[in-house]
Parts: sequence; C-alpha cells; structure tokens
Amino acid sequence: MNKGFMLACDGSNGAGKTTVISGIETHLKQRGIEVVMTREPGGTKISEKIREIILDPSTPEMTEMAELMLFAAARAQHVREKIIPALEQGKVVISDRFDAATFSFQHYARGLDLNTITTINRLALGDFKADMNLILDLDPQEGLKRVKSRGEGLDRLEDEQQQFLQRAREGYLLQAKNDPTRFTVIDASQSKSTVLAQSIELVDKLIDQHIKLSSRV
Amino acid sequence: MNKGFMLACDGSNGAGKTTVISGIETHLKQRGIEVVMTREPGGTKISEKIREIILDPSTPEMTEMAELMLFAAARAQHVREKIIPALEQGKVVISDRFDAATFSFQHYARGLDLNTITTINRLALGDFKADMNLILDLDPQEGLKRVKSRGEGLDRLEDEQQQFLQRAREGYLLQAKNDPTRFTVIDASQSKSTVLAQSIELVDKLIDQHIKLSSRV
Ligand SMILES: Nc1ncnc2c1ncn2[C@@H]1O[C@H](COP(=O)(O)OP(=O)(O)O)[C@@H](O)[C@H]1O
Ligand SMILES: Nc1ncnc2c1ncn2[C@@H]1O[C@H](COP(=O)(O)OP(=O)(O)O)[C@@H](O)[C@H]1O
Ligand SMILES: [Mg+2]
Ligand SMILES: [Mg+2]
Repeated sequence: MNKGFMLACDGSNGAGKTTVISGIETHLKQRGIEVVMTREPGGTKISEKIREIILDPSTPEMTEMAELMLFAAARAQHVREKIIPALEQGKVVISDRFDAATFSFQHYARGLDLNTITTINRLALGDFKADMNLILDLDPQEGLKRVKSRGEGLDRLEDEQQQFLQRAREGYLLQAKNDPTRFTVIDASQSKSTVLAQSIELVDKLIDQHIKLSSRV
Repeated sequence: MNKGFMLACDGSNGAGKTTVISGIETHLKQRGIEVVMTREPGGTKISEKIREIILDPSTPEMTEMAELMLFAAARAQHVREKIIPALEQGKVVISDRFDAATFSFQHYARGLDLNTITTINRLALGDFKADMNLILDLDPQEGLKRVKSRGEGLDRLEDEQQQFLQRAREGYLLQAKNDPTRFTVIDASQSKSTVLAQSIELVDKLIDQHIKLSSRV
C-alpha cells in the first residue's frame, strides 16, 4: 500500500473539475498535507507533448486506435515518472482526468471494444489504480454553456456532438455504478460552494482513513 | 489480397536501408510501377509528430512502455491512413523500417516481454502484415562507422551501447529464421552495387509473382 493517496477527478467538460480540485488543493495544504496537482493527458514533459498531438484540431484524420495508444503512452509515462514516486513519498496526488475518461470517451461514447481498451490500459498502468475517482456529473450541454461563457476555444475532442457527450456522461455513471468503492458521483449542477464542500468532506474522510490504515502497516 | 505490395526494409543503423530502398524505388519507377516511399516511426503528419517525441534526445526519462505505445500509435495511424489505401490502389509501398524493428529493439535488445509487444503490435496493425521484410544485416559497429563518416548527429535511440545493438542485430536474424517466407536477409557488408542488385532481383521476383497471383483472383 502506498503511503500517499491518489484522487482522480473526472466528468464532462465544464463540469467544474479544475475549479473543485483547486479548492481541494487549497484545503489540503491548509491541513499541512503535501499535494501534487497533475492532469491527463499530460502531467510530465513527455506526456504533455503527447497531449498536444492528441488535442491538435488540425489532425481530424487521427484513427481511434492511434488516439487510444497515445493516451496510453502518456499515461504510462505519467504514472511511472510522476504519480507513483509522489505517492511513495506520502503525498496526495490529484489528477484532472485519469483513466475513467478513456473508458467514457473511447468505449461508451465512441464504441471502441472494451477488451482492447482494458488491455491497453492495464499495460499502461501495471497494477496501479487511483484510490478514488471523483465524478462530477453534469449535463454536457450545461457544461458547454459554462465553458462558452468562460470564452475559451474548443479543442479537437471538445468539439464533438451532444449525443457523443451524453454517452460519455452515461459512461462515467456506469463505471461508478460498477465500482462504487472506487467511484463517487457528485451532482455538479449544484453551486460551486456546495460541490466543493461535498468533495472536501469526502476527500477528508478518505485521506484520514488512508492515513490510519497505512500507519497501521 | 491487396493488389499492391508492401516491402519493409530493416536492419542496423548505417546498414544501408535508405541507400538501397532509394535504388529500388528508381528501378521500380523505371519499370512503370507506382511507388510510395515511407518510413517508421513516421510516414504521416501525426506519425511524424510522434516520431519527434520518440527520438527527442532531451527526454531520456521515457519509459519502455511509453515508447512501445508511441511506436504502436504511430504505426496504427501509418497503416490505416497511408499504407493500406496505397496498396488498395495497387501501388508498391516501401517502408524504411517497420514492425520488425520493434521486435528487435524492444524485445531482443531491451528485454521487453514478447507477449506484450505482440499484443500491442497486433492492435496497431489489425491483420495487416508487410509482404516482405528485407533485412540488411551488418555488424552495428560497421554501421556506426558509416554513419559517423556521413557526419550526422546521433538521436536518442542511435546513441546506445554496442551490446544493445548487437542484440538488436541478432533479433533481426532470429525473426528471419522464424519466418523465412516473409523475411529475406541480405549481407549488407557487400558493396552498395551488390546489395542493390541482390535486393532488386528479389523484389522483381516477388512483385512479378504478386502481380500474377492478384490478377488471377
Ligand atoms: N458548480 C458550478 N456552478 C456554476 N459554474 C461553475 C461551477 N463549477 C465551475 N463553474 C464554472 O464553469 C466553468 C468551467 O469550470 P471548470 O472548473 O473549468 O470545468 P472543467 O475543468 O470540468 O472543464 C468555469 O467558468 C467555472 O467558474
Ligand atoms: N553497401 C555499402 N557499403 C558501404 N557504404 C554504404 C553501403 N550502403 C550504404 N553505405 C553508406 O553508409 C552510410 C549509411 O547508409 P544509409 O543508407 O543511410 O543507412 P541506413 O539508412 O541503414 O542508416 C551512407 O553514407 C551510405 O552511403
Ligand atoms: Mg478543466
Ligand atoms: Mg536511413
């Protein structure tokens, strides 16, 4: 068991991931806990370069398999180079998206074979798993409105049709249903302060449990 | 069966791949055959961007798994976007390196598990295989001398120790031994003109056979 704790935060674009994890970060630091913030795809120099290729809007010709393998390559590097070493030092790692996103987008939304994704993801991760996947659940249409009012441009993956995004949302909910000990769904249509309060309550509880368990070993 | 024909050319750095395939290209064009020249990693816009990441000498921290998946991503894109369409149009495709290199370097030289590589490579390729793998066999030390006299800098992968390169060479020879119908080894220590003449003789024979077979279907 790693001394540290890894929290992955996922959900539709605009659901409030970046907002909530930055609130969690502030809170944990106030508790005196060392926190490493990261994201997927990305998080290391190599993985950020892979991210650029994945999100580049000028290459719509990218095949599903190439995309899947790029995500896996970025993740393999991210986990070995950054996440595991931080956890071994007892830090809390918070990732803005992690492997739940691959299953939601590539499998549930785009229809790629589940076995293929599971195989590649397992090769990328080895036996590593996030301790908790926080799913911010929001109607993607609502999320898109939030993002638009933020005034950012859309990248290759964000610029997809609503139906696709609805399936991805359902994919997150299904993963949570299938693995309730590792997933928690939070209703992200609530106010920022409510979403943050609920997230912090959960994270505090889990981290305290984790500290107890790992100090017992 | 594709109307076209795919030739992959492999072997140590400096063995003469670029030299010999450019000679084959000239010869086939003189025969009136349409030829598409390509290379791995690379060959498409996306795959060339992946190539840059793989070969970047400033990131020695790249894990073996990340590297393997980057090669696979580049290959998946290369095969779907460029190779298969060209073969469907009846063209001859010649690739400077292909999947034999992955097995030689990642498995035989670096020791990565054969099943893992086979699994990932099969996902990248689907049921596609090169019609012929031409292996230019040369002592890597000899190849390095040739490259140095060419005055080029070494990239991340070329800058490896001799022992490693010897194992990669043996990897090519083993693959050829295990699959003699799809591999042909040519002694690349011979003169340029001899290597080219032997290669052209082989390629002409195979392409003529292939044309006969595919016109019969
Ligand atoms: N609970 C919320 N209610 C309303 N707006 C929110 C909420 N959470 C975040 N936002 C706003 O929505 C936009 C997207 O939030 P962000 O955290 O960047 O989402 P994500 O990282 O999931 O794409 C931002 O402008 C943010 O201020
Ligand atoms: N058969 C050969 N004998 C001697 N030198 C060769 C031969 N084939 C190629 N060369 C030279 O060796 C160098 C490397 O050849 P090149 O075709 O670029 O190898 P590769 O593409 O396999 O790295 C070049 O300078 C080339 O002119
Ligand atoms: Mg965000
Ligand atoms: Mg060359």
